[in-house]
Amino acid sequence: MYIAIMGYGTVGSGVAEVIMNNQANIAKTAGQESIDIKYILDLRDFPGDVNEKLMIKDFSKILEDDDIKVVVETMGGLHPAFEFVSSCLQKGKSVVTSNKELVAAKGDILIKLAEENNVNFLFEASVGGGIPVLRPIGQCLAANRITEVAGILNGTTNFILTMMIDKNMSFEDALKLAQDNGYAEKDPTADIEGHDAGRKICILSSLCFGKHVFPEDIYMQGITKVSLTDVEYAKAWGGVIKLIGRAKKLSDDKISALVSPAFVKNGSQLASTNDVFNAILVRGDAVGDVVFYGRGAGKLPTASAVVADVIDCAQHLEKRKDYGWESGTTGYVVDYNEIETAMFIRAKADNKDAAKECIDSAFEGAQFIEKESADENEIAFVTPVLKECKIEEVLSSLGSIDILSKIRIVDY
Amino acid sequence: MYIAIMGYGTVGSGVAEVIMNNQANIAKTAGQESIDIKYILDLRDFPGDVNEKLMIKDFSKILEDDDIKVVVETMGGLHPAFEFVSSCLQKGKSVVTSNKELVAAKGDILIKLAEENNVNFLFEASVGGGIPVLRPIGQCLAANRITEVAGILNGTTNFILTMMIDKNMSFEDALKLAQDNGYAEKDPTADIEGHDAGRKICILSSLCFGKHVFPEDIYMQGITKVSLTDVEYAKAWGGVIKLIGRAKKLSDDKISALVSPAFVKNGSQLASTNDVFNAILVRGDAVGDVVFYGRGAGKLPTASAVVADVIDCAQHLEKRKDYGWESGTTGYVVDYNEIETAMFIRAKADNKDAAKECIDSAFEGAQFIEKESADENEIAFVTPVLKECKIEEVLSSLGSIDILSKIRIVDY
Repeated sequence: MYIAIMGYGTVGSGVAEVIMNNQANIAKTAGQESIDIKYILDLRDFPGDVNEKLMIKDFSKILEDDDIKVVVETMGGLHPAFEFVSSCLQKGKSVVTSNKELVAAKGDILIKLAEENNVNFLFEASVGGGIPVLRPIGQCLAANRITEVAGILNGTTNFILTMMIDKNMSFEDALKLAQDNGYAEKDPTADIEGHDAGRKICILSSLCFGKHVFPEDIYMQGITKVSLTDVEYAKAWGGVIKLIGRAKKLSDDKISALVSPAFVKNGSQLASTNDVFNAILVRGDAVGDVVFYGRGAGKLPTASAVVADVIDCAQHLEKRKDYGWESGTTGYVVDYNEIETAMFIRAKADNKDAAKECIDSAFEGAQFIEKESADENEIAFVTPVLKECKIEEVLSSLGSIDILSKIRIVDY
Repeated sequence: MYIAIMGYGTVGSGVAEVIMNNQANIAKTAGQESIDIKYILDLRDFPGDVNEKLMIKDFSKILEDDDIKVVVETMGGLHPAFEFVSSCLQKGKSVVTSNKELVAAKGDILIKLAEENNVNFLFEASVGGGIPVLRPIGQCLAANRITEVAGILNGTTNFILTMMIDKNMSFEDALKLAQDNGYAEKDPTADIEGHDAGRKICILSSLCFGKHVFPEDIYMQGITKVSLTDVEYAKAWGGVIKLIGRAKKLSDDKISALVSPAFVKNGSQLASTNDVFNAILVRGDAVGDVVFYGRGAGKLPTASAVVADVIDCAQHLEKRKDYGWESGTTGYVVDYNEIETAMFIRAKADNKDAAKECIDSAFEGAQFIEKESADENEIAFVTPVLKECKIEEVLSSLGSIDILSKIRIVDY
């Protein structure tokens, strides 16, 4: 069987490498005599590259070649990836992608196109890199009603937070180290502002709850404002700060979905997910909590997930696979202000005792947190579980304190 | 579509419950108008049970009914489960089972029978209860060469060890508590002697490395000899004691596979797997370490895995699934004495200083462990990585010490 790769960056070249390293085995598993890469599409030149002979710059060569049954899209970005993938599906070619931006923005359209053309559109690598998670959700947990999905979905920010927690490093120093190690890009915005994790929680919640969730509909907050002081308070509380993407089924036609830093209790599998590792937790009515853990990024892990999808396509060339979802609807994702949560609050107060009394009566059951060598005028506490808008309302009624930080608390 | 359930114990009745609770959804996912249970086979009577009308005692009714396309085997034990399952497969019915004893002993035969009859033999629930693990290994990790698989595969023993570690409870008290909670059976032998975990590592290694591994070929050691003193030394070493099943590919035609208590370093996902939870770690050449975590037993979690397999069968009634393995061969699993490992040793010595010197020169790089309020004459240390037979040889040459315990060390 012949395949083509579009985009010869980190993941695309990894796909070529995994296939070449393991060719006989992969073909056997796929039930094919062989699996060969016929074209690699990239606008750049790769002189001296082992695959130089396969390089092309003209997409129509792939589109018009009936030998090509499966196309791997590892270009990234929305355009022209969306147009290329659409054309391939319409031509009756299955497509495998690692492009989370594409799936989060256009998944419902491409799933429908694949259905209409009786081919596969698979994207296991778009969430959790090499960790098997989308197919297990679609298949193994099929007998469950999934009620929640949550996870550490971005390795870069998890590395930065781990350095802050374990090494007492500032955010800036940890970001610098992540860049030096190749974990963070020169422009780290998509990672540190939570956009990457946001796209992934869109894909996960679309799959878990059956309807497309668009990135623009969910609240995304990154880790740029997390301070070492907050990290210390989390420790004193008995946990750690992690960037958590999460979504929850509220009713048949409502879900919540957001990304933000969150306090996670020690002992949880998410709390012990460190460095560049990812973990995805799925909560089902029958199975309880299931967690998938592993390297959420990196050339070979991600490439191995892409190649597993290619094998799946080879095994079921004309069979639509069992994961997909319907189009999205307006108002499906509720505003984050309407979501119930407990919140960690750090504030400054000139008169600490009076402020505490005030907080105590405003938030019934507020839990104060003390840490060593805290600022003299600092107060830290955890609110009871309330709608965010209600927490805001109560906080603004507490005239005598200056809010320094607010971090949500999760129960995963 | 009609199905039959053989065995109406905990898992079997859970399967009926999951199907009834979620019928419309399950049928939709399975691509069927409905999925209905037509017969439940059990020798016992269940007067007043919601499914009383479906109960039968005669297996041939299931076998001879062409409406029954999928049979669920949740009887447990080898006989007559093996005969019943074989007959169903030969009659062209797919079979789904949660019976690890059956899969570990007869998996290769039943996989072959299913192939020959162009039906499915699926057993996701036989390892890790409701945790998706076998299908992800077979499908999602298909592009990897799996080099090792390891895990906490038995919830009962993990609960007991957690009580010993966290609550300082003796083995006997913890076992009693597990029985009181319904986590351990009256006769707990299969759990505490490591047989249950042993069967599961057989299934996992068969799948990961492609050749059947029989329970009688692997070394199984349970947790009955783990003492609170050892638990404390593990803490001092920076870890915990867990019952770990593990297997490793040594060459194209050799693997190692065993079950025993082991020291696991804190920070590892296996170390933070507590209570009745299970975790399975798979190490692949491309993906690195992937961990699957969740409830490894229990009525509804296990039943949900069985029902997911039923759905899969309904989707691909006549299609052989992509997980399976070949027959086993003699000498495939090497003797545990030939496996390299580091070992924790606790011993008694009348002359501690002399003994330490002796150990130091016999085991180059031995690492001594000190703990608070240790017995005056007690020595504890970790050997370098050596073949077990070599460790034994060196130990027996140390005439002056009395070995009290030996526990392997793993690097997961």
